[in-house]
Amino acid sequence: MNTFGNIFRLTTFGESHGVAVGAVVDGCPAGIPFDLETLRRDLARRRPGQAYTTERNELDEPEVLSGVFEGLTLGSPIAVIVRNHDQRSKDYNRLKDLYRPSHADYTYQQKYGVRDHRGGGRSSARETLARVIGGSVAQMVLAEKTSIRVKGAVTTLGTIQTERPLTEMQVDNIYASPVRCDDPDVEGKMAEYLEQLRAEGDSTGGIVSIQVDGVEAGLGEPIYRKLNSILAAAMMSINGATGFEMGAGFAVANRRGSENNDQWSEGGGGLRTTTNNSGGVQGGISNGMPIVFRVAFKPPSSIAKEQTHGTTSGETVEHTIAGRHDPSIVIRALPVVEAMTLLVLADMWLQSKAWS
Amino acid sequence: MNTFGNIFRLTTFGESHGVAVGAVVDGCPAGIPFDLETLRRDLARRRPGQAYTTERNELDEPEVLSGVFEGLTLGSPIAVIVRNHDQRSKDYNRLKDLYRPSHADYTYQQKYGVRDHRGGGRSSARETLARVIGGSVAQMVLAEKTSIRVKGAVTTLGTIQTERPLTEMQVDNIYASPVRCDDPDVEGKMAEYLEQLRAEGDSTGGIVSIQVDGVEAGLGEPIYRKLNSILAAAMMSINGATGFEMGAGFAVANRRGSENNDQWSEGGGGLRTTTNNSGGVQGGISNGMPIVFRVAFKPPSSIAKEQTHGTTSGETVEHTIAGRHDPSIVIRALPVVEAMTLLVLADMWLQSKAWS
Amino acid sequence: MNTFGNIFRLTTFGESHGVAVGAVVDGCPAGIPFDLETLRRDLARRRPGQAYTTERNELDEPEVLSGVFEGLTLGSPIAVIVRNHDQRSKDYNRLKDLYRPSHADYTYQQKYGVRDHRGGGRSSARETLARVIGGSVAQMVLAEKTSIRVKGAVTTLGTIQTERPLTEMQVDNIYASPVRCDDPDVEGKMAEYLEQLRAEGDSTGGIVSIQVDGVEAGLGEPIYRKLNSILAAAMMSINGATGFEMGAGFAVANRRGSENNDQWSEGGGGLRTTTNNSGGVQGGISNGMPIVFRVAFKPPSSIAKEQTHGTTSGETVEHTIAGRHDPSIVIRALPVVEAMTLLVLADMWLQSKAWS
Amino acid sequence: MNTFGNIFRLTTFGESHGVAVGAVVDGCPAGIPFDLETLRRDLARRRPGQAYTTERNELDEPEVLSGVFEGLTLGSPIAVIVRNHDQRSKDYNRLKDLYRPSHADYTYQQKYGVRDHRGGGRSSARETLARVIGGSVAQMVLAEKTSIRVKGAVTTLGTIQTERPLTEMQVDNIYASPVRCDDPDVEGKMAEYLEQLRAEGDSTGGIVSIQVDGVEAGLGEPIYRKLNSILAAAMMSINGATGFEMGAGFAVANRRGSENNDQWSEGGGGLRTTTNNSGGVQGGISNGMPIVFRVAFKPPSSIAKEQTHGTTSGETVEHTIAGRHDPSIVIRALPVVEAMTLLVLADMWLQSKAWS
Repeated sequence: MNTFGNIFRLTTFGESHGVAVGAVVDGCPAGIPFDLETLRRDLARRRPGQAYTTERNELDEPEVLSGVFEGLTLGSPIAVIVRNHDQRSKDYNRLKDLYRPSHADYTYQQKYGVRDHRGGGRSSARETLARVIGGSVAQMVLAEKTSIRVKGAVTTLGTIQTERPLTEMQVDNIYASPVRCDDPDVEGKMAEYLEQLRAEGDSTGGIVSIQVDGVEAGLGEPIYRKLNSILAAAMMSINGATGFEMGAGFAVANRRGSENNDQWSEGGGGLRTTTNNSGGVQGGISNGMPIVFRVAFKPPSSIAKEQTHGTTSGETVEHTIAGRHDPSIVIRALPVVEAMTLLVLADMWLQSKAWS
Repeated sequence: MNTFGNIFRLTTFGESHGVAVGAVVDGCPAGIPFDLETLRRDLARRRPGQAYTTERNELDEPEVLSGVFEGLTLGSPIAVIVRNHDQRSKDYNRLKDLYRPSHADYTYQQKYGVRDHRGGGRSSARETLARVIGGSVAQMVLAEKTSIRVKGAVTTLGTIQTERPLTEMQVDNIYASPVRCDDPDVEGKMAEYLEQLRAEGDSTGGIVSIQVDGVEAGLGEPIYRKLNSILAAAMMSINGATGFEMGAGFAVANRRGSENNDQWSEGGGGLRTTTNNSGGVQGGISNGMPIVFRVAFKPPSSIAKEQTHGTTSGETVEHTIAGRHDPSIVIRALPVVEAMTLLVLADMWLQSKAWS
Repeated sequence: MNTFGNIFRLTTFGESHGVAVGAVVDGCPAGIPFDLETLRRDLARRRPGQAYTTERNELDEPEVLSGVFEGLTLGSPIAVIVRNHDQRSKDYNRLKDLYRPSHADYTYQQKYGVRDHRGGGRSSARETLARVIGGSVAQMVLAEKTSIRVKGAVTTLGTIQTERPLTEMQVDNIYASPVRCDDPDVEGKMAEYLEQLRAEGDSTGGIVSIQVDGVEAGLGEPIYRKLNSILAAAMMSINGATGFEMGAGFAVANRRGSENNDQWSEGGGGLRTTTNNSGGVQGGISNGMPIVFRVAFKPPSSIAKEQTHGTTSGETVEHTIAGRHDPSIVIRALPVVEAMTLLVLADMWLQSKAWS
Repeated sequence: MNTFGNIFRLTTFGESHGVAVGAVVDGCPAGIPFDLETLRRDLARRRPGQAYTTERNELDEPEVLSGVFEGLTLGSPIAVIVRNHDQRSKDYNRLKDLYRPSHADYTYQQKYGVRDHRGGGRSSARETLARVIGGSVAQMVLAEKTSIRVKGAVTTLGTIQTERPLTEMQVDNIYASPVRCDDPDVEGKMAEYLEQLRAEGDSTGGIVSIQVDGVEAGLGEPIYRKLNSILAAAMMSINGATGFEMGAGFAVANRRGSENNDQWSEGGGGLRTTTNNSGGVQGGISNGMPIVFRVAFKPPSSIAKEQTHGTTSGETVEHTIAGRHDPSIVIRALPVVEAMTLLVLADMWLQSKAWS
């Protein structure tokens, strides 16, 4: 199922080493200014070939095929494709008969019986490019119609983590930072760690944190399309995501109700809570506080070390994967996490209007 | 949206203090033996009025309205209702104008403009009864057609946690334990802690762990209905869930690829992995290893302590909630987590057949 | 798939001779006055035991289980059941091993392997009762929020058809007429024909015509949820429906564009068309003119004549079906056609708000 | 909503005079031989620039972007685009402020507030090209896995209709005929009539008839995804479709049950019916007999005669539409009707396997 969303829907397609990767955004309201520069910027933010990401360098130039006329969305599906240029497919020939550890090689083969082994095919992180296209359109809608603003950062990289709250970070600084963390105390250590991992041919896990401001009370459709539930599905659908927590998340397991409950206070123009352990959601519906959550990502599976691979004939073999490797997913995952957040919010916001 | 699932679909309804709570299971294959005793047992496992859960005692007797004929499912929708008997609605009169801390009172009011304030209405944990009905039917299907077996336990309760792996626990022992944990070293401490909390009028968070055996490789529909993604959505839709992690989960944030990658080994009749940090899922598709995940639950919001409530007129007031309170959600959440797991697996298993 | 609709969703369940038939309406806006008397009236309009319908007399008393509180809808699912009282199941024992001509006996058996042979089980017209419940709720929403009004009548019964346009008929007169046709010239002939058929143990087909007023321009979601497309699906899902036509329908096959095109004219406050061959829909979207369509129904398959039945052992046998038979479907189908129309319009109207 | 289907899903995009029109087919099983020549042939069958269709000549060369590897489908989404080459957009400048009679100009403007007026934009018949892509892939699946064969023909063109049953027509002859009718007695008259209409600048309606052989009993998901219901939705979603009838269709309105019931007979290897008034479907489920239905299409709205147009400022004006016009839709609609039939059947066939 390559479609995400209920009313504002993203359908994506494309293998890593196929002709193109693309996205169809359906359910976008008509009359929204479509800004190609915003889309280019968003795509650039997840592009490989940057510092601390793999060296594969693709231009990732989007071509808009439909849904936009004279600078405005038409209400019809917006299709955007990005062609795959830099396809060193021969790098992958050796992988035709191998299952890499902790990759999707084996599961795709078992499920489908055939697979495009080149660069992971459909399971490649290149697929996330199409999500960024979707998120970029969602952002155009939300920017035009609401006050919703999404901010995210890499807050944990291996054993290094920032103590600086997201509230104090600036989006521009975050994206100016090669490690996507606006914390001068930590940024350098993260960068050093990545250099070290690169030298060692190893990789590291990490955490992306998100804060969404400007969400009014009322988003989320109980019982089975709760805002937190759909956010969880969205995040856990990203390659390499291993955990999701809302607000105080796993930390609440050890807490008492008397510490964890968010007490009410009178705020400007309505009720607020003094703490936000709920992460902005109660009973699956936004309560007007910032939406706060975190997503854990595993260390990239592709490392330059010898590992035990499976083979298509059911045996195992020691092998070292050649080619380009990222020492971390989280840096390139950040704009993807943001894109999925924007998609969920645009969908939920449009839905909430139906019953308003 | 009160429907969960794609092909095997659960639709639920009912307010806590309304006439009845119910479930409609659509997409159940025909010819499955329908065992009312299994359903009764599953409902009993989440029933209040047991040790360490609230004293509200309802019989929770299911009435099957449709979809079953001469002991077999018909392939048509199976509707089951449970009437609400023990409705001390007057206990809740005071809550008509109050928003309790960390409850859904405020968000429902903001979203819908009206709400059934009695016992939380639709946001009540009583809704999970309908999920257990759905899970029970899913279990009947999986038991008849597959080798899939779901096992879960409470593995963390406040600061107390078991070190015993789920693999070593027995389902019967787990449900014989009032704290739903088959670990003699820890069970007693958990029970004591709950007694202490009850005495203090406080509550605690906790964690439910799940292991699913017998899932063959190939379940899960990439990209946006990955098995882990749909499990995350299912779990985060349960009242009080605050976090979800697959396999090694958040722990991987600090790890290196060389420690975290699951190396391949030759197993009986196919490939296996030597570790299972992936939790049985790679690229969103099951790989034949046990499906392993954990769900964090917050401490119940209802405590017998004075707290700052909001009011419908936009002010705050100190108030102590009367009535029955559970010191923990996780004990009653366990069968709900299991039910949602069964629903996801039945849906995914049926779907996988479509393309087989 | 026992759910109809996208945002305003009806899920139904129940076998003819099971415990109950029921409906769950999900996506109903909160705060709508819920009028039980309207529901009772709508159910009465399709009830058997009236003139010219079968003599089976059930009270069809609805029980509202959820979703309504203090006379208003809560925004949560509205579940309503009607118990099956008058179950002369023994009448159907002979049918256990027989497939009646033009019934669903054979196809259900082939698809599901099991079936509830009593009264058609899930394929019985009794299922339409649940649709009427859904339509009644849809009507409450549309009456509260819009000017949409649905009117229908039986316009053809066998070889007898009215020439009177629907515009001139009154809803009250239609439902006062035992043949559901407000045309004094024709009503008597239709009634006579039905008496004759009943005496002969035979049945007749017919046509229901619908006109919807008050639909503003803009309803319908191209390309695959066009208003006419969804209306067609809704109508053809009704038991015994064999054809659907929009506006001028099949008659246009013989026409020229110069006769068929709806020319524009200036109306009060906007554009109108001088004719309405399009039936109020252009390009799948309502154009502000009345929505006009017709649905053909076959003669009831159950007749008191000897016919060639199939048997479960693959042979044929001559047999005369005992029991109660309607000489026509259309009379009882009218409120069902209206209900499905209301469900489509409520769903489309809510959807249109999402993008407004 | 630009997605059609439940498990086998077609998502389409593209405006008539935009960059490209395209289709994404999701849910196609893996390992199906993908035949580009079949796709080219199917696209050629609906291409304009043939005898009796408009003279606009586009190559309609499909580019496959994803989902196919080494000649086999991967199980991932198959995206195919066709670029728009022959865009005489200036022809349409006059239409910027005009609403043509019986076109979607007005309704799109009312719904979306903006529209691509060039050639109808999204409402153009060019969109059906993407449906043919989807149908072509569906055909590849059904040909590989089942015995299902779809055959269709133009059976009515204005006042001319064939009496020859579809059973006797040959697919090759049908597509060799410029009027898509394998009936030597009628073909010539139809062609003459089209010539006459072209000379007069007028157009005509018509009917497409379909027969599907090789469908086993059991396809169709009652109650709301009955095979006939979904076929009706599919057909009525095609541009210009005004009516749908299954089996004997509207003719049954005048019939008696004793004439219309399909009596059972013993056939080779199972039960058959002696007549097929049900059109191969009973209770929404295929019964093993040929699936038979008909679709009415209106005369094309674009004619070379002066007509009363609406204007964006709410007035009317007499105007004659310049440009290329088809005298009939049905000839180009035939492959689209076949494509939608194939899409429905592929979806239903895959679904039926889920519960098998």
